Formats: sequence, C-alpha cells, structure tokens
Amino acid sequence: MRIEIDRPWDMHLHLRDGAMLNLAAPHSARHFAGAVVMPNLVPPVADADALRAYRSRVLRAAGTDAETFTPLMTLFLKNQTRAELEAARETPGFFAVKLYPAGATTNSDGGVRDFGDAEPTLRAMEKLGIPLLVHGESGGFVLDREAEFLPVYRDLARRFPKLKICMEHISTAAALPLLDEFENLFATATLHHLLFTLDDLAGGLLAPHLFCKPIVKRPEDRAALRAAVFSGHPKIMFGSDSAPHPVEKKECAGAAGGVYDAPVLLPALAALFAENGALDKLEGFLGGNARRIYGLPAPRGKIALEDAPQDVPAFFEGENGLRVAPLFAGTRLPWRVADGNFS
Amino acid sequence: MRIEIDRPWDMHLHLRDGAMLNLAAPHSARHFAGAVVMPNLVPPVADADALRAYRSRVLRAAGTDAETFTPLMTLFLKNQTRAELEAARETPGFFAVKLYPAGATTNSDGGVRDFGDAEPTLRAMEKLGIPLLVHGESGGFVLDREAEFLPVYRDLARRFPKLKICMEHISTAAALPLLDEFENLFATATLHHLLFTLDDLAGGLLAPHLFCKPIVKRPEDRAALRAAVFSGHPKIMFGSDSAPHPVEKKECAGAAGGVYDAPVLLPALAALFAENGALDKLEGFLGGNARRIYGLPAPRGKIALEDAPQDVPAFFEGENGLRVAPLFAGTRLPWRVADGNFS
Repeated sequence: MRIEIDRPWDMHLHLRDGAMLNLAAPHSARHFAGAVVMPNLVPPVADADALRAYRSRVLRAAGTDAETFTPLMTLFLKNQTRAELEAARETPGFFAVKLYPAGATTNSDGGVRDFGDAEPTLRAMEKLGIPLLVHGESGGFVLDREAEFLPVYRDLARRFPKLKICMEHISTAAALPLLDEFENLFATATLHHLLFTLDDLAGGLLAPHLFCKPIVKRPEDRAALRAAVFSGHPKIMFGSDSAPHPVEKKECAGAAGGVYDAPVLLPALAALFAENGALDKLEGFLGGNARRIYGLPAPRGKIALEDAPQDVPAFFEGENGLRVAPLFAGTRLPWRVADGNFS
Repeated sequence: MRIEIDRPWDMHLHLRDGAMLNLAAPHSARHFAGAVVMPNLVPPVADADALRAYRSRVLRAAGTDAETFTPLMTLFLKNQTRAELEAARETPGFFAVKLYPAGATTNSDGGVRDFGDAEPTLRAMEKLGIPLLVHGESGGFVLDREAEFLPVYRDLARRFPKLKICMEHISTAAALPLLDEFENLFATATLHHLLFTLDDLAGGLLAPHLFCKPIVKRPEDRAALRAAVFSGHPKIMFGSDSAPHPVEKKECAGAAGGVYDAPVLLPALAALFAENGALDKLEGFLGGNARRIYGLPAPRGKIALEDAPQDVPAFFEGENGLRVAPLFAGTRLPWRVADGNFS
C-alpha cells in the first residue's frame, strides 16, 4: 500500500540547541512542512531577540530555508508586557506563547508559579491574537497531573474567550470533553500517547526511552485518545513532543523525560493509522486541522508513505560524541517514507 | 537516640547466585537473624536437591553458620507431588513454597499458568503444614495487578483454610482488608513500598533503582500501608524483597525490576519509624510477628540502632567487575546500625 498526503506539520517539537539541534533539526526538516518549536532552552526563549536568534540557528541546523521547513517560533511565558509581545510578534516566524507551570518538565523551572500574575500578559495576547500553548500539568501525583490541571484550562477558556488555547500533548480521556465545552480550546496529541500506556514504560522491563511528561497513562486513556484521533476529531492536531536527550541522560540512575521520535514519526503514524483503519484521517491530523485552526499556509507538496519495512538505527550520532536513541531504535518498522527515511 | 531490638528477620529476600550471591549474602547476614530466601534462580529451586545445594551456597556466601544467619529456604511452586514436598520438607532450613504467576517478575517464566493445576500440590501443602508465599499479581495493567489478584487470594484462603498463605510485598490499600477477612492470610511489606510512590519512580526524573514488581503505587496506597504497619498490625511482617541487579541491568534501555536495599534496611527503617513516631512497633514488624505466625526461633541477641548519620556508598563491588547500587546510593542516612553498616 502507498499513500500520498500533504507535507505534514508537527505542532509541538523540541529541537534543543547546539550539537543536539544540529542532530535533530534535519530529522524534522526532511519530511515536514514545518513545526512549532518549543522555547524551553537554558535560558528560555523569552524575548524578541532570543526568538530571532533561535530561529536562525534552527534554520541553519535544518540546512534549509523557511519556505521548505517553517519553524513556527514560540515565546516562553514569563509575564511579558504588551510591548514585549508586540516586539515578539514582529519577529519572523513568530507563532505563539508557551505556558509551562514551573517545574513541570525539562527546563521549565522559570515557568509560571502564579496564574494570577500571568493575567495581564494573557489579556494582551488575547487582544493581539497570539495563541497560548499550555503544558497542562499540576504539581500533584504523576498520573493525576493532567486531570488536576483541567480546571485551569476551563478557567482560562472562560476568562479569555478570544484567546486560542491549545492543550498540548493531551494524555487522558478526561481532557477530551473540554474540546466540546469550549470553542477556544484545542489540543495536540503525540504519537507516543497514542501508542503506549504505563505498561509499556514499566509493565515489563523499565523503558526509559518511553519516559516523558506527561507520563503515558492507563489503557482507557489511550483508547479514548485513539478513538478521538482515528475518528478525525477536528480540534486535535498532531504534535510529536519529540524531545531528544543524549543516551547517557536516558540510560542512567535519573533519566530525563522525553521521547525522541522525530526520525520515525511518519512511518510509525502510517502503520498505526493503517492498523486502525484510519488512514483517511491521517492527513487532517498531520496538518489539515492545524491549517484550519491556526491559518497555516496552504499545502506545499506531497509526501508518499508505503507499507515497506525499514530498520531503525540503534542511535544517531552528532558532534562531540553525541548519541541519541530514537523511538523504535534497532527494530523494524512496517512502513516507510517512500524516499527512504534514514538513508 | 539509640534503640536495641531483637536481631531481625527478613521474610522475603532475593540473594541470587554466583558472584551476586557472594556480594549480597553478607549484607543480610551481618545484622539479620535470618531470611526467607526466594527460589527464582535460573533454573528455579524446585526440588529437594536444589534446596540443599542452594542453602549450602547461601551459607558459604554469607560466611557464617545457620545458627548465626538462618536461611529459610523456599521451593518454587511447579505442581510438585506430595512425595516431592515431603522430600523438600526433610531438607535443612526448609520453610515454604513460593507461588509465582508465570511472567510476573524476574525469572518467573516457569511459574503457575493455571491455578487449577496447582490444586493437588496446595492440598498436600495444607496437610503437611507447609506455608504458601505468593507473588500476587495478575497479568493486567501494571497498577491494577495486585488489586486484580485479590480474588485469587480470597479463593485460596477459602479453599485451603488450614494453609498459611502469605501475600508477599503488599503494595495497595485494597490488600489490607483481606487480613481481617481470613484468619489464614498474612502479608509481608517492604521498605520501598512504605517509602515510595510512583512519583518517586517517575514523577521527576525516572529512577530505575526504585523500579520493582509490584510497582510502587499511589500515595493513598502508601498511606494505608504505613498506617497498618506503624500501628503494629499483627499480621504484617517485614520482607525486604531486596533484589540486586548489576548496575548495567538497571541503567539501560530495558531495566530489570528490583530494589537492592539489603545494605540499608535497618537504618532506613529506623529513620522511617522514628519520623512516624512508631519506633515501638519496629521490633514486632522486624521479627515478633513472624515468630508468632510461623513459630520462628526465640530471639538471638540484640542489635542497636542510633540516630547518627552515615554515608551510603555509590555501589558495592563484587567478583568479575560486578557492581550493584544500593538504595540511597551516594546519600547520607540519618540513622545507622551502632556497630557501623558499611565499615
């Protein structure tokens, strides 16, 4: 079997910086029309100058121009003033503001501690038409964090009715009804939350390469996410949350959160959608919904996927001895991008 | 502060074999009066000859005699005949039969697949007065496995009313009421299930050295276990489930389950019980209950614990480059055994 779809968008992507950026950016740039690039660097991307400079580094690392692979840049929410938001909005490729609750994930220590303090920034964003992307987790028990955060989404959606709010990487069944409740709430979903549950992470041997925040959840949660995505839910967009770490930061006594699946996203998604009789919904998930919701550019060519096997490398090597293990490292995938994925 | 307690019993201990046995056995033998030694070797300890030979290896590795450190030997349940059970019972130090559902944990592939098949063995054990120790987990979702297994405990307790059945390493609040329901049901509890929840394993960085089966559970589960143990529940015995693996099997892409806490058990338990105002319940948990339930020998001397700090090594080294990281590796404990723990 072979399908052709519009070149896709990854609406939630971590590219990091330095050697890791140089390793990771080409994996996304090769097949995607563009990606929403997360700002949780050290220090975070929190002003116009940082946005401009980071976008340049991303494009240089991707080895392409912004027409071929469009980095949609995000600003780390730190209660910026309206003037600062306006300056950010002037930078090329500016897309949205990302809200991290302090401490929720990698490099989020400078995130929001008090939502009251963020009010003026959110009000200005609403007026300026800047979308808000949210890492929605409380500081509670790891499996309950998303569910505990849902009242915050409800509150934000009510208080800022013209603000487009995206619940990033939703991982629970409980998040889905909010998409019907509030016109201004949207969501991204990852490959790994569609594929895995806590059983895959910790039911047999412990699998640190499947460890991420939000953590993979119960089978009922995965089933609900699958049902929504495979039925073509119009408010759920694909966002990989692909998040590379060096192998030695994953296979150690205190492993960092993040699944690096940028290199295998398209074949793995095609296989998953095919298994579930949902190939006709893949194109909408991978870009159609985002184009409609955010007004992204018209399709820029096609990409072909075919059900022919390919072997995933055990790891990718970068500068200075950097090694990163992708999802499905060392295994065979039943689908591939027709032009070859790892050649 | 300083307390003296009877030399304790560890009612659930993995000592492994070969170089690992040689490394681990002295850690338990140094301060414990004895331990129930698990039979999940490769191949499992499943007959009288294997029991005898393994006990000899344990004593040799411990570097002591059976009066100073008593290995209570267990037989891996493989539907043995009555004659085989009688032969096992004749071996020195024989204590109980251990039931593993197939695949539930390390080296359990040869365990029970069909409880109906085990009926004649269990009937014979009941007649011979041999206790049954059970790894009680279903094959379901990792957090539900113990709760899903509880009906099996109920069924066994009803069908074999004279069989002493021990729910090993209980990890959920749901297991506790069974102790009141059935006179012939008992339980062991570990240090790590009293200390940790899934938040410690996966709420921040992923901590493979806290990964075990049954997996650490929700805060409510830990709270219920703590309440039962700190109130001096007469049917709950300490069983560490200390289970060493080489560092490279814990810090890797597929980490083995097992917490190695034998070297730090007594100081860590003393600190935990002290923090919770339960030091007066420590001696019963560490041996009094087991003596009453199983008729273990009278106390054999005392051991002193004091609230003076000690540093835990990053790892212990054995033969052939073997390295094992203990719980609390590289940190400072607020209590110690008065004769020194790691000197």
